[in-house]
Amino acid sequence: MPQPMRAVMRPEQTAFSETEGDHGTSLARALDRWTALLGADHVLAQGTDLEAYRQSTLPAAPSAWAVLRPGSRDQLIEALAIARECAVPLYPISRGRNWGYGDACPVTEGQVVVDLGRMNRILEVDPDLGYAVIEPGVTQGQLARYIEDNGLALCIDATGAGPETSLVGNVLERGYGHSPAGDRFRSICGLQVVLADGRVLETGFGHYQDAQASRVFPYGVGPVLDGLFTQSNFGIVTKMGLWLQPKPAVTQVFICSVEAESGIAGLVEDLRRLRLNGDLRSIVHIGNELRAFSGEGGFPLDRAREGPPLSPELRGELRRELGVGAWTAWGGLSGSSAQVAVARRAVKRALKKPGRKLVIMDERKLKLARVFARTSLGRGLRHKLDAVAAALDLVRGRPTDHFLTGVYWRRPGGRPAGDADPRTDGCGVLWLSPVMPMTGPAVTRFMALIAPIYAAHGFDLFVTLNLVTERALGAVLNIVYDKADPEEATRARGCYDQLLDSLMAEGLPPYRVGIQSMAQLDQGSDVFWDVAAEIKAALDPEGMIAPGRYQPGRARSQR
Amino acid sequence: MPQPMRAVMRPEQTAFSETEGDHGTSLARALDRWTALLGADHVLAQGTDLEAYRQSTLPAAPSAWAVLRPGSRDQLIEALAIARECAVPLYPISRGRNWGYGDACPVTEGQVVVDLGRMNRILEVDPDLGYAVIEPGVTQGQLARYIEDNGLALCIDATGAGPETSLVGNVLERGYGHSPAGDRFRSICGLQVVLADGRVLETGFGHYQDAQASRVFPYGVGPVLDGLFTQSNFGIVTKMGLWLQPKPAVTQVFICSVEAESGIAGLVEDLRRLRLNGDLRSIVHIGNELRAFSGEGGFPLDRAREGPPLSPELRGELRRELGVGAWTAWGGLSGSSAQVAVARRAVKRALKKPGRKLVIMDERKLKLARVFARTSLGRGLRHKLDAVAAALDLVRGRPTDHFLTGVYWRRPGGRPAGDADPRTDGCGVLWLSPVMPMTGPAVTRFMALIAPIYAAHGFDLFVTLNLVTERALGAVLNIVYDKADPEEATRARGCYDQLLDSLMAEGLPPYRVGIQSMAQLDQGSDVFWDVAAEIKAALDPEGMIAPGRYQPGRARSQR
Repeated sequence: MPQPMRAVMRPEQTAFSETEGDHGTSLARALDRWTALLGADHVLAQGTDLEAYRQSTLPAAPSAWAVLRPGSRDQLIEALAIARECAVPLYPISRGRNWGYGDACPVTEGQVVVDLGRMNRILEVDPDLGYAVIEPGVTQGQLARYIEDNGLALCIDATGAGPETSLVGNVLERGYGHSPAGDRFRSICGLQVVLADGRVLETGFGHYQDAQASRVFPYGVGPVLDGLFTQSNFGIVTKMGLWLQPKPAVTQVFICSVEAESGIAGLVEDLRRLRLNGDLRSIVHIGNELRAFSGEGGFPLDRAREGPPLSPELRGELRRELGVGAWTAWGGLSGSSAQVAVARRAVKRALKKPGRKLVIMDERKLKLARVFARTSLGRGLRHKLDAVAAALDLVRGRPTDHFLTGVYWRRPGGRPAGDADPRTDGCGVLWLSPVMPMTGPAVTRFMALIAPIYAAHGFDLFVTLNLVTERALGAVLNIVYDKADPEEATRARGCYDQLLDSLMAEGLPPYRVGIQSMAQLDQGSDVFWDVAAEIKAALDPEGMIAPGRYQPGRARSQR
Repeated sequence: MPQPMRAVMRPEQTAFSETEGDHGTSLARALDRWTALLGADHVLAQGTDLEAYRQSTLPAAPSAWAVLRPGSRDQLIEALAIARECAVPLYPISRGRNWGYGDACPVTEGQVVVDLGRMNRILEVDPDLGYAVIEPGVTQGQLARYIEDNGLALCIDATGAGPETSLVGNVLERGYGHSPAGDRFRSICGLQVVLADGRVLETGFGHYQDAQASRVFPYGVGPVLDGLFTQSNFGIVTKMGLWLQPKPAVTQVFICSVEAESGIAGLVEDLRRLRLNGDLRSIVHIGNELRAFSGEGGFPLDRAREGPPLSPELRGELRRELGVGAWTAWGGLSGSSAQVAVARRAVKRALKKPGRKLVIMDERKLKLARVFARTSLGRGLRHKLDAVAAALDLVRGRPTDHFLTGVYWRRPGGRPAGDADPRTDGCGVLWLSPVMPMTGPAVTRFMALIAPIYAAHGFDLFVTLNLVTERALGAVLNIVYDKADPEEATRARGCYDQLLDSLMAEGLPPYRVGIQSMAQLDQGSDVFWDVAAEIKAALDPEGMIAPGRYQPGRARSQR
């Protein structure tokens, strides 16, 4: 068994103010040099600014020792040289909005967070070939706005995590959105990566001088290295080529709700056929009833004084009152009007069945419905139309934070007005994202596995099932808890751990994990993780970059 | 600069019969042990069977010391252990049909070829989820036949290299076919890889016990390692999950020819828009006139006694006689009848322009045309209809060797009857595959660069431009030469080298190279290739697997 990591520090110290002895000294020395390099404004070693980075939607998270905010790649490389000399590892974040998975917090104590948010240049957008070249600090909202402001006939793939999230950060976590380019990993075309020793790697054709195809052909020649720099700690990505889609002439959203809980199996079978044969090209999202309820407001304490979970009776009442089914699938139909017409007919043919309701909405229909919703008859519609509008926005590449409302379910006071920031708003949420084959039986087994665990721990079951490839469903389980209540927070973590263990045992590992679960990824002796560790040892022998991140052995040794 | 490779042998010896001294001894010892392991039938150390492996379509190629044919993964692992103990490196091939790029030959002398052709099991085909799990010896023809014989509503992506080529071998070289799944790298879903030390790595979710999603979700959790095992020598792939497409209800082929040479620029612009907006989902191939001429027969010595290249006048005559344009694009339209109807209309609208001819063919039209071709009026049509039939086969996933005819252009006697095997038939061909942005100006500059080089070296210019992504053109340049003529073979290599140098200088590196060009991939100090070498050193420190393959430093040191 290889032992690639040399421990460069002990993790006992949990914050700069408490550090002492050798490590305190080297950190202090490093901070002095970083301050000289970046300026005092961009080195946070104490105070409320640092505290904000240390907040998390998780029940508990390691604290950054300090935060650096380099303004350029060259500054980053110099900051890394100082880190190496002082043996203080760096933990890069793009915007730190990794809600439900660890936010801006490092995997272990004893790391200095490097916030790349100031490196937020849109370096190039090619309207004919359909790509952008961006830095890690560029947000979804920023690129969408840039395209709109410049009248380009392009659109981005947007996720539901809101306009302020980093594109690069999410793509490197292999997140997925709502458009035909929703499998975001497949939109990478050329990475620039700063390695632990300060070398700059360009993937694809990008390392060849004046390479003409580096943003249009992702693989280059020789081994494809891009995958190495996703969900890993092998380097710090400082630039990314990202494919954009032509702006579709027509965008519509279909919404298909299923009355009975058991109806999900048949729906998934129908959707798979539509997805495989190319009628549905966007990533479809299917939410359960709790996802729908939580979009309308917080937990109804007035009707369930004993707190979560909602009783089956109350869930039934809410379903009837809000007019939602046990499951609601929605997805975009976009393209030329002829393409959309074909997709629309195929969707109708496949999805219109007893026990389901199907609606297909576009901008025009939405406007009409809004007029109706202003009448007394349509009053109950308003919330629903907001959701439809948000869905239409997302599938058109306009980021919205509408769908973040659900994570406020247990926050005392619900969601405040203004932009959502679950971390600073004090929300408690754990996300868990197992992947399963896109078949009815797989979903039925999955639900039978998870529902009793939620119930046993006293939480409402929030789940979305997302058609992440033509063949796989990526589930997102939310454990939404009251972060102000320590008992509930502890219970949430217990629920999460049991879910993760049970899912791993059933052969349903997650596609991505939060910082608290890196150690569980290795289920014993596993050549895969050994090989990953050997690559880490080759590229970052001193463990300078994000020790423990997707590095189970290291994460385990530091618990 | 890292020095990861330890030379395990000197390459002076070029064949077993000539080996002497230490290396001869270790090879002899290894051969004894391999023979005990695999049986004498599956260890070729001399004789005509070995000679067949040493044949190549290249002007010159290093000779395998010997050939091993393991029948299973476990035999392979044992053979590798013997190789390690005796310090004899192994060069894996799947079926050895890498025509124009080195065939079955190793990159350097002093290697023993491991032919994985006997490992040819189709381990699983899932008709609902649309995937297969196959071994490296499985051919395109074999899998297509399996699907047909079992009446499965699936189809493979086929390349034009004929039914006897390995799927795994081509996918690992990141080859591309003719269907919507033509970017074959994106169809990989889970690799099993034997590493140099005999460990077995499973990528994606495959390393988790009972993982349910390992064939439907390619990335797993943590770094994506699959790309590492394409175009590299980091391991030996022994199993591959490969996505298959649902069998389309309708398949048609459009053929658009352009009269004038300069017409290619506008055609490429039109095709890019169709490809980006989703009207054209298959990989379109565009051939120049020589590709068309060479499909009809060998070089017309009777009309050009001085040999190649054809004069502009004769090219004009042939164009008129055969009724072909300077360029011919063709591609598949497949899907439901409604999808194909939309695509068809979009193709017509975009491509019907002065100076072009557009035909859209399906099975029924082809049959009618064949009837007409039997009449005296239609006599000239016959060859063309054979090409259309072959194109229809390819886009439906039925491998054909029709399009290999072109490599027989300079072979004395032309193409013999029966299955094409350019290597054993003694064809001379070098393939060179630069990639460029899918724009008119890029193509025009490209043609202006390469045409004079072909002319200067006295070769006919064969080129196809393939829409490998929605944004990039992958060109395939053929240098077709008479392998029986040493002068012409030397000239072919000279032409190739000048083309490659010029293309690299223009920022147009190839997406893939032949065994003769590994050293040129590194154009100086290059972090990319240093990193690749560091990964090689981590995974295969003794250089046991295919030394020099996509390993420029090593290939250079051995020249």
